[in-house]
Amino acid sequence: MRIVEGGGLGRDLHVELGGPGGRRAALTAALREAVRSGRLAPGTTLPPYRSLAADLGLARNTVAEAYAELVAEGWLTARQGSGTRVADRAAPPPAAEPAPAPAARPAYDLRQGQPHTGSFPRSAWLAAARRALTAAPNDAFGPGDPRGRRELREALAGYLARARGVRTSPERIVVCSGFAGGLRLLAGLPQVRRGRPMAVEEYGLAHHRAILDLAGLRTVPVAVDARGADTAALPGTRARSVLLTPAHQFPTGGPLHPARRAAAVEWARHVDGLVVEDDYDGEFRFDRQPVGALQGLDPERVVYVGSASKSLTPALRMGWMALPAHLVEPVVEAKGVREQTLSALDQLTLAEFVESGGYDRHLRGMRQRYRRRRDQLAAALAARVPHVEVAGVAAGLHAVLRLPPGTEAAVLAAAGRAGLALDPLSAFRHPSAAGAAPDGVVVGYAAPPDHAFTATLDVLCRALARATR
Amino acid sequence: MRIVEGGGLGRDLHVELGGPGGRRAALTAALREAVRSGRLAPGTTLPPYRSLAADLGLARNTVAEAYAELVAEGWLTARQGSGTRVADRAAPPPAAEPAPAPAARPAYDLRQGQPHTGSFPRSAWLAAARRALTAAPNDAFGPGDPRGRRELREALAGYLARARGVRTSPERIVVCSGFAGGLRLLAGLPQVRRGRPMAVEEYGLAHHRAILDLAGLRTVPVAVDARGADTAALPGTRARSVLLTPAHQFPTGGPLHPARRAAAVEWARHVDGLVVEDDYDGEFRFDRQPVGALQGLDPERVVYVGSASKSLTPALRMGWMALPAHLVEPVVEAKGVREQTLSALDQLTLAEFVESGGYDRHLRGMRQRYRRRRDQLAAALAARVPHVEVAGVAAGLHAVLRLPPGTEAAVLAAAGRAGLALDPLSAFRHPSAAGAAPDGVVVGYAAPPDHAFTATLDVLCRALARATR
Repeated sequence: MRIVEGGGLGRDLHVELGGPGGRRAALTAALREAVRSGRLAPGTTLPPYRSLAADLGLARNTVAEAYAELVAEGWLTARQGSGTRVADRAAPPPAAEPAPAPAARPAYDLRQGQPHTGSFPRSAWLAAARRALTAAPNDAFGPGDPRGRRELREALAGYLARARGVRTSPERIVVCSGFAGGLRLLAGLPQVRRGRPMAVEEYGLAHHRAILDLAGLRTVPVAVDARGADTAALPGTRARSVLLTPAHQFPTGGPLHPARRAAAVEWARHVDGLVVEDDYDGEFRFDRQPVGALQGLDPERVVYVGSASKSLTPALRMGWMALPAHLVEPVVEAKGVREQTLSALDQLTLAEFVESGGYDRHLRGMRQRYRRRRDQLAAALAARVPHVEVAGVAAGLHAVLRLPPGTEAAVLAAAGRAGLALDPLSAFRHPSAAGAAPDGVVVGYAAPPDHAFTATLDVLCRALARATR
Repeated sequence: MRIVEGGGLGRDLHVELGGPGGRRAALTAALREAVRSGRLAPGTTLPPYRSLAADLGLARNTVAEAYAELVAEGWLTARQGSGTRVADRAAPPPAAEPAPAPAARPAYDLRQGQPHTGSFPRSAWLAAARRALTAAPNDAFGPGDPRGRRELREALAGYLARARGVRTSPERIVVCSGFAGGLRLLAGLPQVRRGRPMAVEEYGLAHHRAILDLAGLRTVPVAVDARGADTAALPGTRARSVLLTPAHQFPTGGPLHPARRAAAVEWARHVDGLVVEDDYDGEFRFDRQPVGALQGLDPERVVYVGSASKSLTPALRMGWMALPAHLVEPVVEAKGVREQTLSALDQLTLAEFVESGGYDRHLRGMRQRYRRRRDQLAAALAARVPHVEVAGVAAGLHAVLRLPPGTEAAVLAAAGRAGLALDPLSAFRHPSAAGAAPDGVVVGYAAPPDHAFTATLDVLCRALARATR
């Protein structure tokens, strides 16, 4: 690369010849930049082609073409007889960029919602990508089916039946942008809305309630206790749909009791309603086999929604729904217009990853890893803050710590002073939930890097000890 | 893998031992399926653990755990003293799946909108993926920045400045799900809406108008002629925003005239308004350097929106916006809640693909390929239907064929009979566009596979000859 400074106008031009676009591109860019920056003022007459060409050691035609291009772009104007000049309307140089405020990162982070990012199986994923992209038909690189790639829907139908007891077929599976993307799609459907509110568990993700709010769908809370959501209360609401986390109530923990599973499905049949099953971490059950999906009890009344966000990584934004037959067309139609957002290349790779057994292998490894962390957390708490009750740890990536009444805010404050970010239990509570709100914190133990985990637990225990004694 | 048929209840069970989940999983699945299918009727009492265990050659504990799991899922009920039975509420077997209607595929396809899928650079992309994923920090596998990965925003800021004359910085770039995803985000912003309609070119994608409609944003058409959109007409509308395709009016062809580029920016400054620049195929200019982006004239008044859908593949759903400073925060906020849908892994790979020069190389190759196809199309039409005028072919992946008045429907019908799918020009016309609608068809020449291209042109020429003579 050679930097040329020509005489005359060339004084103002720094032209790097030999860059990716060739000499003409380099000259055009240099002239454009000179106008932009104000070095060439509005109204300035440019030298004739041949003088600038001689100045810069370029062909005359190269200069002529560069001028023509900048005229086309509006930087220069060319008038018969008066030569080429810098346009009057050329914009002033932009103000200096405001530096973006760097997001403050806590020193220790036990907020829920993230898997262990250091465990993403990079090599296995890349190997699957290579196999998948090499084998893919050309149409994989065109616009896709709004339901998602056939290969992925087939792999998921098999996996979900085998691992989660879901009864579905590739035709009833529709991929979506994580659980949130699926909920957004469902919330827009008249078949789901029906002019009624949606029942939700009194504890859940505020983000999910926000999605429903944004879609104009009112939510009514259903009480949650140690047996999960009180689905026997559903007939007492005006709702015709309910959002449940049957495998592991989020965030309070525990699978939905068998009688309550049955009651939810019974209710949906009775009112011609719908259950939306959020199976966000169904794969991560530690002390026995995972509880199968509620969807298996009645595939025409339950929408099963799963995702790779906890099981693999949220970076893929990959989710899937197993739909009742009557919702397939409406969802596909809504998605066709609004939501075709998932990379087909990732879909092919995930299909290959599942079919080749890589997904199962990864899940087995992560189950062990998370179980060890859970055990370490439980042991540390039992030893150092035995008065704090640990709940919801038979599964998943988080625990709920039940705190002595009135201490939640103090624990959060003590943690904050020590640089530890935590989610208060109250943040998950529906604003209209009835009864007293117990004090607690939700501890996401999956995300911290290995080298920091013990130190993070230590900070947690100290904050708990200080604020609850 | 061994298929075991036990005696007694075992007659109804087909248990495949040795599958991915082990013996307990296999037994659980077999029992679940037997209940589902109705082979085990509601109310049936199951044999005691030890008899079934003996039947199947399993440990007693394995059977006990399988029963417990199915009780938890609601398939079985266990009552003290009365043993384990099939639950009353078990669902009837689902009806046979309706076979999905296969989408009818035309024998020949010249509809616009698709790049040449056979040219996706699989090896170069996989190599970039390997480099990108190997080098990525762990946080790449966590939840991302709603603006998109920093690596990609940096690569794009450099690329767009160099190749498209865009003036931006990584802080002002926000990735989005293709152009459509960007438009959807913008259409929701009060800063864009302002209780006013949005001006659009009288020819454009109906899908884009549908997105604006869906967002409750009314559109008003601006006339289009050989010099592009008549931006001098903007002050006569109530609009405060306009959607333009300055590099190559879609679909009628031709770059926006320099005076009209200037007029669009002048208008936006005067009314405190906004230009949305759809640079859908700005890279594919054949006969001279690409016309730089309009955004370069005033980065505070123009939102530049580009995507990889034409340049690389729509399968990535990858798009990007270069935003005026005052829109960065509003877009990020809207995106944080509604639109964080792009795979971070693809973003990292694209960043590496751009930085390593792979993207430029791919574009150079495709430019040659598309130019050859354009030349072949033009030559075939000139030789065989010289009375059909070809327009808009100095750039892009499509041509507009101007037809004799009153022949558009006949050409579509003749093409249809020959198995050729084509887009009528009228399909791109705004419903409120004034004046007479010229007859024409839009020919997307990028997508057909190489081996079929000559035959497809032949079918096109014959249909044109038959219907316009």
